[in-house]
Amino acid sequence: MFPSSLKKLIDNFRMLPGIGGKTAERLAFSMLEFDKNNLTSFANAILEVRDHIGHCKVCGNISEGDLCSICSNSDRDFSTIFVVERPKDIILFEKLGVYKGIYHVLNGLISPLDGIGPDEIEISSLLSRINNSDVQEVILALKPSIEGETTMQYIKKILSDKNIKVTKIATGVPIGTDMEYIDSLTLELAIDERKNMN
Amino acid sequence: MFPSSLKKLIDNFRMLPGIGGKTAERLAFSMLEFDKNNLTSFANAILEVRDHIGHCKVCGNISEGDLCSICSNSDRDFSTIFVVERPKDIILFEKLGVYKGIYHVLNGLISPLDGIGPDEIEISSLLSRINNSDVQEVILALKPSIEGETTMQYIKKILSDKNIKVTKIATGVPIGTDMEYIDSLTLELAIDERKNMN
Repeated sequence: MFPSSLKKLIDNFRMLPGIGGKTAERLAFSMLEFDKNNLTSFANAILEVRDHIGHCKVCGNISEGDLCSICSNSDRDFSTIFVVERPKDIILFEKLGVYKGIYHVLNGLISPLDGIGPDEIEISSLLSRINNSDVQEVILALKPSIEGETTMQYIKKILSDKNIKVTKIATGVPIGTDMEYIDSLTLELAIDERKNMN
Repeated sequence: MFPSSLKKLIDNFRMLPGIGGKTAERLAFSMLEFDKNNLTSFANAILEVRDHIGHCKVCGNISEGDLCSICSNSDRDFSTIFVVERPKDIILFEKLGVYKGIYHVLNGLISPLDGIGPDEIEISSLLSRINNSDVQEVILALKPSIEGETTMQYIKKILSDKNIKVTKIATGVPIGTDMEYIDSLTLELAIDERKNMN
């Protein structure tokens, strides 16, 4: 029903997360109305990502060189390491523009049920970064799930013999959400972690 | 914040209809986890569409050759022409698998307010196809809007002196929808076009 080249493009769009058959067809069809130059530019952008994007040798962030834009920026505060699960979490926090330190990407979370232990994620590299530099605080920003909590507890434990402040970002009720839509675990945590207002 | 090649890919995704900034970022990021071969295949699919997809010289359907797969299929019934607005409408109707005739793509609808008259869309080519062949029925399948109705009335008029049956697909209440969600114009039409059940 589709010309074979269009069929291939639809199949490629379907590989993207959250893109089903109908959306893939709609997106591929919309490209038929693109200028030929725009199609060239789109294809080249994919090839450039294929050829140029790698990972920062220090923190694991995505990067076009050996060092990412954050690790190579001498204006950053190298005494604070912000620990995240994935490179895209860095983008999320960088957009806020409030954090001035550096990052460390774990590339996963400890999950015994999935056979992922501390050695399967970037914990030893975090430890060696800390041992070889003057880090004063490690901020853990992993998602508040069983895997996230397990990983944060593990990192806290292996850092316990060092003179380093280990913190984790707050869990609680998000701003602007009706209380009735919040799950009960979050509500319980919000009560447990209540703050003194005096 | 993004490496420049990733930024370019995000910008390209944003050119797609219905893809906003956040979705473009999510899609581009997901491609960082693709196998390099899959990235090559995606880029090549775009380039193949750029280089191979054109329009059928007869009906205006998308095609990799001079004639589309429908116009070049001798099993189709060449005495019936199904008139649609866009090539993607053909896919929609072909998926049903019930229509066995051929198509004609208008590439637009008459819309005086937008400065689109009969000469701006593929009406004269429809007329010359009809004059040069043995067409017995023209089925109009344009959307039931002011522009669609205007275009259908116009085509009906220019074909009135020919011995050709001109039909249009039915408007009415869609199956499986609660009556209360149907707009009043559709309900009025459904009454006007009621069918005798005897």
